[in-house]
Amino acid sequence: MLKKNRLFTPGPTPLLPAAQTAMAAANIHHRTADFKALFQKTLANLKTFIGTQNDVLLLASSGTGAMEASVANLTKAGDKILVLTAGKFGERWRDLGKAYGCQVELVSAPYGQIIPLEAVREKLGANGNGLRCVYVQATESSTGVRHDVEGIARLVRDANAKGGDVLLVVDAITGLGTTRLDVDGWGIDIIIGGSQKALMIPPGLAYLAVSERAWKRMEEPHSPAYYFDLRKERKSAAKGESAYTPAIALIAAMGAALDFIAQNAGGDLAQGRDSLIQNAEVMAAMTRAAAQALGLKIYSASPGAALTAIVPPNDLDSGVIVKEFRERFDAVVANGQGDMKGKMFRIAHLGCFDYLDTIAIIAGMELVIAKVTGAKVEYGSAVRAAQEVYLKATSAKAQSA
Amino acid sequence: MLKKNRLFTPGPTPLLPAAQTAMAAANIHHRTADFKALFQKTLANLKTFIGTQNDVLLLASSGTGAMEASVANLTKAGDKILVLTAGKFGERWRDLGKAYGCQVELVSAPYGQIIPLEAVREKLGANGNGLRCVYVQATESSTGVRHDVEGIARLVRDANAKGGDVLLVVDAITGLGTTRLDVDGWGIDIIIGGSQKALMIPPGLAYLAVSERAWKRMEEPHSPAYYFDLRKERKSAAKGESAYTPAIALIAAMGAALDFIAQNAGGDLAQGRDSLIQNAEVMAAMTRAAAQALGLKIYSASPGAALTAIVPPNDLDSGVIVKEFRERFDAVVANGQGDMKGKMFRIAHLGCFDYLDTIAIIAGMELVIAKVTGAKVEYGSAVRAAQEVYLKATSAKAQSA
Repeated sequence: MLKKNRLFTPGPTPLLPAAQTAMAAANIHHRTADFKALFQKTLANLKTFIGTQNDVLLLASSGTGAMEASVANLTKAGDKILVLTAGKFGERWRDLGKAYGCQVELVSAPYGQIIPLEAVREKLGANGNGLRCVYVQATESSTGVRHDVEGIARLVRDANAKGGDVLLVVDAITGLGTTRLDVDGWGIDIIIGGSQKALMIPPGLAYLAVSERAWKRMEEPHSPAYYFDLRKERKSAAKGESAYTPAIALIAAMGAALDFIAQNAGGDLAQGRDSLIQNAEVMAAMTRAAAQALGLKIYSASPGAALTAIVPPNDLDSGVIVKEFRERFDAVVANGQGDMKGKMFRIAHLGCFDYLDTIAIIAGMELVIAKVTGAKVEYGSAVRAAQEVYLKATSAKAQSA
Repeated sequence: MLKKNRLFTPGPTPLLPAAQTAMAAANIHHRTADFKALFQKTLANLKTFIGTQNDVLLLASSGTGAMEASVANLTKAGDKILVLTAGKFGERWRDLGKAYGCQVELVSAPYGQIIPLEAVREKLGANGNGLRCVYVQATESSTGVRHDVEGIARLVRDANAKGGDVLLVVDAITGLGTTRLDVDGWGIDIIIGGSQKALMIPPGLAYLAVSERAWKRMEEPHSPAYYFDLRKERKSAAKGESAYTPAIALIAAMGAALDFIAQNAGGDLAQGRDSLIQNAEVMAAMTRAAAQALGLKIYSASPGAALTAIVPPNDLDSGVIVKEFRERFDAVVANGQGDMKGKMFRIAHLGCFDYLDTIAIIAGMELVIAKVTGAKVEYGSAVRAAQEVYLKATSAKAQSA
């Protein structure tokens, strides 16, 4: 039987054809007016996509590069920072803080849970307790959890109002384009995105928006940062350039992806981004209804719309499920990461998944679950549950028997 | 909501990504050793794909060009030919015969029916009745019918064994890659294919295999043929060239598509072609089971595997269904053609459709039928019927409740 290779992974996500074409066509030099126009337009559109008035920068790196930049440029060895962690990517903030010699305070929640605001409040004390930065994920890709960034930001603002000088840095690599984030209103000092997520292009670009407060902080002594020197990057961006050789083809792809998102809302990029978020929400709700119809448990009680992490039935190793999706349909779903390997499989909704994609993988999941458990599955039942969610969401009259 | 544009039409069919890449990369000149190697390899692989020892030619034209070549090169004005017709494409043979001044005898079957062998036998009489050619479709794309080419070929052989001189020309544009055809064993003198069908590349290339008997016929006086002069094309092909400027990018795409088909069977192209046919058969059987589960009628009693033509419920205009598929999912299914417009919608299986594609369009069809009829549809029921067909076909143990 024919099988087409398809990604259902929360990054890289399936490539947008218009972006693939733009990427393949991007045979241009980066010190030309052509590229400058593309670069400036892309930075301006990223501002709208992120929903901020802050400066936006593009880095030729994975998202981790922008995370590192947000530690190296904002802190020096010995600084006290607060890392909020409930998964693989929270742990990456911790590791980065340690690598740069920071004194890392932690608020940890178990995998699949959200960061408890009370514990954050305690760490911040009345006026920030001398903390220099708070680092958190908007959505923890390893478990699918959506943290309460708005609540955390409020706590940071409160502490700063009482004399604190705490910056808030949010890894929104899977959050941007899947979650509503009021960057300027809440006071997020650095927010980080990655190309291979909701933007539907290959990995290789990180982007971040930096607040005035964060720029001010960088005037103080901080850890060494050369390739990831954000102030240098800002100066170049002001001239419509990148400090180092930019990933030209990826920027062309990103430009095309942002155009696509705008076109889907009659040319209004902010509205297009909101549609993209809504789309992910519907795909997520479809997938969760389907999983529940099959008697499967969702890993997190507070899942974001980027992905759904599903607990395998009967204590099965989720690797068996991932393998069956791949072997039977050439569909790539994600296993758990690190300690969670074997304990969940993850289906993505961020980026370019539509009804036909999602209903197909659900119809595939029915066969996979029947196969790996040997249990009786009522075929079509998960599909039906998802269809009902879709119909309700799209306001079509439900006509199910 | 996001919607990806998807073709479920019986030509053009969805493009194979490897072929798209090859097409985009084909920045070569046609009078070079590079192109010659590509051209010769592609012709050799087409021979295997068609399953013939006859000469294979490629024309930069749609399939109709090769149909015209098969009339112009094999007949002269006044010649008596027999056209077997049961749809739009049968009528094209009739029109071509008339355009070249032939005396066109017809065996017609109603749309959706197969050509009755008895009527063909009668027309051929004991020794061909002076008929010069018989023209037929392997599968009639306009209705989805598969004709009994083997039976027709036997009648032609019988007539020729008794002194007739009748050539058999088969339009297998949707037949190749979806239907088993023993070209040399049955004695098909010209068989015609098109690029935008099972070969998964864009329109613009026709290909045909020509028997020794057909070459011999071309030595006799025949109608004018310049661009479609098959003997000129044969001479060029023998030198690894085309007579006129070839459609370079499409030939590169075709080369990649044939490679893909072979790779799917461990490098064995003939086996890969058989797998492609089997794949179409399973996708067709899934779609038919799904349609029947929704109480819908299949248009033809003898459908081939290339496509399924489905009769709309309650005497609805099928245009409404086609429109709903497009508006709701951006999925392109085909309406009926000509007189059949409004009377059927057609879902394709030829080329690159896999389980996830087919189950998705079926889950889409459930919503479309519910919407356009306003009737109660048991969501998931058509999906379930298709899943059961798929599981049976792939020999997986069915575990439906």
